[in-house]
Amino acid sequence: MTQTAAGVKGRSFETKIERISLDKRVESAVDSLAVEEPLEIRIGFGGEHRAVSITMRTPGADAELAAGFLFTEGILHAPAEIKAVKHCGKFPNNQNTIRIDLAEKTSVDLKRLERNFYTTSSCGVCGKSSLEALTVAGAREVLETGAAKIPTGIIHRLPEILSRHQTIFHETGGLHAAALFDFAGNLIDLREDVGRHNAVDKLIGRQFLDKKLPLAEKILFLSGRASFELVQKAVMAQIPVIAAVGAPSSLAVEAAREFNLTLLGFVRENRFNIYCGGNRIEARAP
Amino acid sequence: MTQTAAGVKGRSFETKIERISLDKRVESAVDSLAVEEPLEIRIGFGGEHRAVSITMRTPGADAELAAGFLFTEGILHAPAEIKAVKHCGKFPNNQNTIRIDLAEKTSVDLKRLERNFYTTSSCGVCGKSSLEALTVAGAREVLETGAAKIPTGIIHRLPEILSRHQTIFHETGGLHAAALFDFAGNLIDLREDVGRHNAVDKLIGRQFLDKKLPLAEKILFLSGRASFELVQKAVMAQIPVIAAVGAPSSLAVEAAREFNLTLLGFVRENRFNIYCGGNRIEARAP
Repeated sequence: MTQTAAGVKGRSFETKIERISLDKRVESAVDSLAVEEPLEIRIGFGGEHRAVSITMRTPGADAELAAGFLFTEGILHAPAEIKAVKHCGKFPNNQNTIRIDLAEKTSVDLKRLERNFYTTSSCGVCGKSSLEALTVAGAREVLETGAAKIPTGIIHRLPEILSRHQTIFHETGGLHAAALFDFAGNLIDLREDVGRHNAVDKLIGRQFLDKKLPLAEKILFLSGRASFELVQKAVMAQIPVIAAVGAPSSLAVEAAREFNLTLLGFVRENRFNIYCGGNRIEARAP
Repeated sequence: MTQTAAGVKGRSFETKIERISLDKRVESAVDSLAVEEPLEIRIGFGGEHRAVSITMRTPGADAELAAGFLFTEGILHAPAEIKAVKHCGKFPNNQNTIRIDLAEKTSVDLKRLERNFYTTSSCGVCGKSSLEALTVAGAREVLETGAAKIPTGIIHRLPEILSRHQTIFHETGGLHAAALFDFAGNLIDLREDVGRHNAVDKLIGRQFLDKKLPLAEKILFLSGRASFELVQKAVMAQIPVIAAVGAPSSLAVEAAREFNLTLLGFVRENRFNIYCGGNRIEARAP
């Protein structure tokens, strides 16, 4: 497993991949990934602080992120309300918690915060890694289910098949799609939504309600980028393969490796990248 | 203001726009928008329920969304744990709350939910519209600040200027960007992040910390789509113009109209759409 260094300051990091093109040429290459890590934002006075937000972000400008979040959410109103901003938290994730110390006279409506709290498990709690949090949530490694492999030609065709069925996108140009395929490239189901995580929840939710989980020998195809949160959802449903039109994040690749998924990115009609789990893709010319 | 009908079942709706092309041709047109509305997910036994999530989603397949969310977050484990799923909530937003009644023996770790709660104001509470919630958060109409207008030629050039400065994107292909421009097309600042809301929070956070708010006569330029949440953030910072490379959602357009913003979508070097606030764009040939 490629470990994102705790407290990493860079916003991209390199990982080994395989590049596949239409002529089945396989190239080993090094690819740069956008770093994705959780940030917990805490606010308070003196020694007492509470977490008000956990977001998956690219490290860097964390003080600005915390200030901007609190301002645009209507919690803070002027920079003078902030006495200090600093990273805190326990080793080894001390760069993933940021604390805003409020000036003494600042009045914060914590009740308002509480009313608008909502859930996520896309992140660990302070001092705990996201991958550990995922394990706690009951995620298990995706099982091998025999020798079934996906021909590369099927992968190249997924974008075109999706495009033919994406009705609302064609009308509005404004939706994310998530589709479920079998290893032979048959479209099983498709959902579209303004939120990419919602499209995946709708897709998996239908299979869940129909008692079709675990989703062995299926492909989760995403119209956009692959983030940690989407990999997490695939792991929960035991979907062994994720193919995304866009790029994966660093944490998406880490999670896919940790839980034995195949993760494909930049899936186009003439090429795609294998980030991990190449064993589920058909034997290719050397 | 165009009102999204409460309880709307469609996933796209039509709105009047102006289409601008490089030759300054102006066309009135009707554009289809992806519908974006909040969904509150509640779970419980019998008469007692609690909200566990509020998400901005495209209406439709709400039962699947709720079931998929609860399963992929590790809260529910089998369809048998669900006794019934139904929309509830008060008129006129009764399609925007969904309730999962759990089977009697289902054990749900509500403590776990609490620990992972985090904030959002991207949505109203049950029975209240998102726009009302925004007003409650202290958002005010963006003020007119004189006669300054943006030449259409400046708008067409924004994607290219952004592209030249988007360093991490070029490395990874995996980041959202948010940039601040003045009305003459000068780039003031740029932030990139795996989360589009984070890029905007970082951008506005810097200006906030530098005591440069309100951001009169500035353009918020987005590398992707414009959602309600991003419009909300611009309103809080009093940024009068949003220009997005992608499509806006229905609620983004509603919010922009309600708060007197200019909202431009599909901004490319040869065309863009004006969804509202055309008065801030230079006089154009008829």
